[in-house]
Amino acid sequence: MALDSERNTTFNKDALRLLLHNKIMPTVSLERLREIREKAKKVPDLLVSFEKYHMTREQSINNAIKHGLAWKAFMDKENLNRDERRVVLGFNTELSGHMLHYEFFLPSLELQASQEQKEKWVQKIENLEILGCYAQTELGHGSNVRGIEIEARYDEKTQEFVFHSPTITATKWWIGGLGVVSTHALLVARLIIKGQDYGPHAFVIQIRDLATHEPLPGVDVGDIGPKIGLHGNDNGYLRFEYFRQPKDSMLNRFAKINANDEYEIIDPNAMKILYLSLIRARSSLIFDAWYPITIALTISIRYSLIREQFPDPENPKKEKKILDYQIQRYKLFRMLGRLYAIICARPFIKSLYTQAEEKLNNSDVSDLAFLHCIVSLYKSYVTFNALEAIEECRRSCGGHGYMMLSGLPSLYAEYLPSVTYDGDNSILALQSARYFMSLLRKPKQMPETLEYLSENPSIPQGDAHCPIFHQKCFELAARNRFRRLVVRERALLSQGKKKDIIWNSDLQVEAIEACEAAYYASIHGYFVKSILAIQDQSIKNTFENLRQIFAASELERFNGELARAGITGETLDRIKAVQLEGFDKIRPDALGLVEIFEVDDEVLNSVIAKKNGLIYQDMLRTSKYLNPLNKERVFPGVKKQLKPKI
Amino acid sequence: MALDSERNTTFNKDALRLLLHNKIMPTVSLERLREIREKAKKVPDLLVSFEKYHMTREQSINNAIKHGLAWKAFMDKENLNRDERRVVLGFNTELSGHMLHYEFFLPSLELQASQEQKEKWVQKIENLEILGCYAQTELGHGSNVRGIEIEARYDEKTQEFVFHSPTITATKWWIGGLGVVSTHALLVARLIIKGQDYGPHAFVIQIRDLATHEPLPGVDVGDIGPKIGLHGNDNGYLRFEYFRQPKDSMLNRFAKINANDEYEIIDPNAMKILYLSLIRARSSLIFDAWYPITIALTISIRYSLIREQFPDPENPKKEKKILDYQIQRYKLFRMLGRLYAIICARPFIKSLYTQAEEKLNNSDVSDLAFLHCIVSLYKSYVTFNALEAIEECRRSCGGHGYMMLSGLPSLYAEYLPSVTYDGDNSILALQSARYFMSLLRKPKQMPETLEYLSENPSIPQGDAHCPIFHQKCFELAARNRFRRLVVRERALLSQGKKKDIIWNSDLQVEAIEACEAAYYASIHGYFVKSILAIQDQSIKNTFENLRQIFAASELERFNGELARAGITGETLDRIKAVQLEGFDKIRPDALGLVEIFEVDDEVLNSVIAKKNGLIYQDMLRTSKYLNPLNKERVFPGVKKQLKPKI
Ligand SMILES: Cc1cc2nc3c(=O)[nH]c(=O)nc-3n(C[C@H](O)[C@H](O)[C@H](O)COP(=O)(O)OP(=O)(O)OC[C@H]3O[C@@H](n4cnc5c(N)ncnc54)[C@H](O)[C@@H]3O)c2cc1C
Ligand SMILES: Cc1cc2nc3c(=O)[nH]c(=O)nc-3n(C[C@H](O)[C@H](O)[C@H](O)COP(=O)(O)OP(=O)(O)OC[C@H]3O[C@@H](n4cnc5c(N)ncnc54)[C@H](O)[C@@H]3O)c2cc1C
Repeated sequence: MALDSERNTTFNKDALRLLLHNKIMPTVSLERLREIREKAKKVPDLLVSFEKYHMTREQSINNAIKHGLAWKAFMDKENLNRDERRVVLGFNTELSGHMLHYEFFLPSLELQASQEQKEKWVQKIENLEILGCYAQTELGHGSNVRGIEIEARYDEKTQEFVFHSPTITATKWWIGGLGVVSTHALLVARLIIKGQDYGPHAFVIQIRDLATHEPLPGVDVGDIGPKIGLHGNDNGYLRFEYFRQPKDSMLNRFAKINANDEYEIIDPNAMKILYLSLIRARSSLIFDAWYPITIALTISIRYSLIREQFPDPENPKKEKKILDYQIQRYKLFRMLGRLYAIICARPFIKSLYTQAEEKLNNSDVSDLAFLHCIVSLYKSYVTFNALEAIEECRRSCGGHGYMMLSGLPSLYAEYLPSVTYDGDNSILALQSARYFMSLLRKPKQMPETLEYLSENPSIPQGDAHCPIFHQKCFELAARNRFRRLVVRERALLSQGKKKDIIWNSDLQVEAIEACEAAYYASIHGYFVKSILAIQDQSIKNTFENLRQIFAASELERFNGELARAGITGETLDRIKAVQLEGFDKIRPDALGLVEIFEVDDEVLNSVIAKKNGLIYQDMLRTSKYLNPLNKERVFPGVKKQLKPKI
Repeated sequence: MALDSERNTTFNKDALRLLLHNKIMPTVSLERLREIREKAKKVPDLLVSFEKYHMTREQSINNAIKHGLAWKAFMDKENLNRDERRVVLGFNTELSGHMLHYEFFLPSLELQASQEQKEKWVQKIENLEILGCYAQTELGHGSNVRGIEIEARYDEKTQEFVFHSPTITATKWWIGGLGVVSTHALLVARLIIKGQDYGPHAFVIQIRDLATHEPLPGVDVGDIGPKIGLHGNDNGYLRFEYFRQPKDSMLNRFAKINANDEYEIIDPNAMKILYLSLIRARSSLIFDAWYPITIALTISIRYSLIREQFPDPENPKKEKKILDYQIQRYKLFRMLGRLYAIICARPFIKSLYTQAEEKLNNSDVSDLAFLHCIVSLYKSYVTFNALEAIEECRRSCGGHGYMMLSGLPSLYAEYLPSVTYDGDNSILALQSARYFMSLLRKPKQMPETLEYLSENPSIPQGDAHCPIFHQKCFELAARNRFRRLVVRERALLSQGKKKDIIWNSDLQVEAIEACEAAYYASIHGYFVKSILAIQDQSIKNTFENLRQIFAASELERFNGELARAGITGETLDRIKAVQLEGFDKIRPDALGLVEIFEVDDEVLNSVIAKKNGLIYQDMLRTSKYLNPLNKERVFPGVKKQLKPKI
């Protein structure tokens, strides 16, 4: 095959495949993964296809339903456990109502329901007897969840809740899967008992008739309209007009209305556990980010080895592969370094999460605040980074990257909202910053990985390739930015300004800039640690090359910090040289480093990046014959409108 | 109206409106512009509408045709000249086939046709008797135009050209307006006479029957398929099978086939003039970039004044306008500074262009290389900047910025390819860099505005607000980057490497980084000059605030350069403070500074940024009633697929 000469690698492929697999999907064995994948590939309804790019919204939603049902059938047939079913989920990068049902509605309910309620609901959900969504955001309130307005007023007489939307802004909005498919919602509403407002609480309620699928009386529900991506997802709106539901629709793990019709707290850790539910959603964004980046890089690196442009001065009869231009390597290999960094960080974040969860199950909440800080930080920068990576890959394919058929525009458009949902990235970074600041006030309680923040400043020394030197540089940038922030905060407070006010008006920009440095210090630290643990020397070398590219590239953002702290221009130039050398060192392994993830053509769904390297014929054929616009020799609209005039 | 209190400005509105108008549309008077606009607003077919966001591609193309015809009718009725008709063009941000016909096909033909050919074609084009497109790119060749493969073989016997696509990659591809609407194409094909290949030349040929609109025999033409934006544009493909066209289809201003059937050059400046045609297209991207940024900022600043989120610590009963969070100001006001910078640079680039064109008309090509360098540089960074601005605005609207109805996603998707077409930005920046390098080799011929590149280094001194200090800082960054590049080039050459090779493999990254600094030095220089010329003190102050935001924000990219050259950390902190203060200073004028452009609700086409400040009711109504998905109480696909299963 055309690309085969590009497939020799300097590293042991089997060993790398296994190593990566254990980082990204440790709970399913590689054999089992491959087995499931091969079986799933034989079920057409589970696969995406080029038709996707031509669909209307109606067709996209129908397709998502078809996909969801096929997924369910496959799960049952193959008896997949919860981790295994995510393998198949990966076949379609677009979030559908069914995915939200299993991945969002179900775990949220499990977290907040009492034991009795779980018995009532979980089986139904697993069996898809009902279809649920997670309804929190309203037209008027997203980030500020405490500001939501929908009311759940308890009626003591009938022992029911009366749900009502008192204003326009009290319309639930954006709820994935709600528009046309869901029968139920996990609803966040203000709990009101005897006129007293207890703030947002969670309820599970039915919104559509199970027999007819019609909205129940008192429920006004529909799809909010077209978006730039996620066409198959029916993000919906929801309003209530004095809509009654039984008392046990309130999820009762943390609080309930007792026999005296009074509010009663059941678990004093309630808010903390709810916290964990937010953290869980954000963590999955961190854990899953490798996947769209991998798809984007597989497409663009493969394409850059097929695409040739301009005569090669070393061989003027042939054109040069675009991956052999330095600037194309710069675009793609920086993103490759990022991908591997994100993968290396994954197990560390995962174990922070698992530890905190275990402690919490023993009523120990001590790890939670730190976990929240790190997960907010990572959610924010990992999604920013992943999105930038996808777009950089798209642009690197020139014009063809603008065609839906390249697979890249939809990947980008579908990933786009991840910088907004599950916590707007700016707001998360700010939350993280405030926690860092609180740690700086109590340096003795500083977690080990952040001790550098309270170290004494010194100018990092070392070879420009050295991981420890790079790490010290990132830490220097973070430390100095946080120090300046501390000084600034102190100065503002001493002017008599209130803390809440300065954190809205004066410190947000610098706080986020400090967080940026802390993020890179953290993720680079994990990259270094991961490499230390690698046994196979060929893999170790490859990872080290990728790390050098990553460090040298990301350190550039902090050149100002480094130089003002005393690192010389010559040292910065040497770091730059490490970056550029790195591109050339990694080049022979480029294709291997993306194909190792085994993303099949069926999943890439791209006409410009076939595994066999043959693309132009397919492009022409696909555009010509699959495109509804080319069905008739003269486009009907031309006949009708244009011809009579020209 | 809700927003009225935000509409008081510190500057004189009429004076600013006129000043801006003269920079962005100097050839049409402001009165005339307003007159045309008011008339056009009464022609429904000229306006976009929310329906746009719901259309299939078929509908989008029909709509584009309708719009194109209405535009033509309006032009005729109001007797618009070429500059005036662009006013109406601005009503729709999406490039349509008709726009390409008038703005691309026509001027390209005028430039390359002989006098006789102009007489034959121009009137037909103006009258829309034919509809044309510009067909250069092929499936296999975009940036490398010299590599195109379609052949125009001259047949002496019949005195005709035989057009043929010898390979799959020789398929014309991406051609705007070609897919279903065009009747003619300005085709770039290899001219072959008596077996000798003269390389790419321009032809004007008919591809569809004027009576039936069917493709002529030997012509295989169609639409290439869906894209992430520009749904109404039928980018097309085109193949020929021994397709014959008359001898005069070759455009003859520069060269022709003479009576002896020999190739004859008519104008020795041919290639240079062709150059100007490329420069013309790139210049329009620079000249027009203010417009999408203005739309994006009008939507997002207005929305940020309507949207409130989180209780205001200074007034806990109310929520805070999101524009009053520092990080929101950071997002939007940096982009506002950029917008004004780009507008200030516009007349300077325009006059460079006009001068070079005038000289060229007198056969003096001396300005052309420099113009090409500057236009390439600006095309590259202005489009990058504009795109980033639109996306930053979109994200700043939170979830609602992801809805098509906000107007932002389509604006972004439609602007996206501008970093690729009319010259891929990386390649343009590289061309620019090589010209800068050639200037550095002949410092005596250095144009005045670039003299700083060969000045002796010194550490800039001055107040952190001072325009001259900022300018010196930008220049320092550019000078030092280019100096290092010169040193690197010299070292590589002295290792015996060939120049062509190192400019593919070794210097591209640093060359582009040097260009980045040169761009900011140039545009900031124009900003400063423009402010010097302002009479009205209130406007001068406002511009100076915007310039400070711009300078302080964009200088941050060069903090490494500044610090290593000896600028102290305290100075960098002071520049940062200038940025943050700047946000607060500009805040009272924020709405005024975007509304001054008078972009009407009809053009914004956004449900989240109505002039009257009332949005939520409209959002709900529009989503509910305009959305085809909500037509039936139960979505048909649910009834058909889902109900039988759950
Ligand atoms: C595709 C998609 C799917 C979604 N699915 C669901 C779902 O299934 N269920 C659900 O409940 N919700 C869902 N959401 C909603 C999502 O959770 C919200 O969009 C998100 O919480 C952000 O809220 P917002 O859109 O109201 O933005 P806002 O909170 O209004 O923010 C707007 C802007 O203001 C800024 N801002 C706000 N407050 C501050 C502050 N204190 N300091 C500084 N800046 C501030 C933000 O940074 C942002 O730039 C979805 C959204 C999208 C886009
Ligand atoms: C929406 C849209 C509309 C268009 N309309 C028209 C039209 O009406 N008529 C028309 O003729 N064309 C049109 N085009 C085509 C457009 O002009 C080309 O896409 C553009 O010239 C880039 O060429 P390419 O796509 O082949 O990219 P390539 O040239 O293949 O570039 C791919 C990648 O390789 C890199 N690369 C290539 N060469 C080098 C090098 N020497 N050094 C470093 N890097 C290199 C590029 O930077 C890029 O990252 C349109 C394109 C789009 C997307």
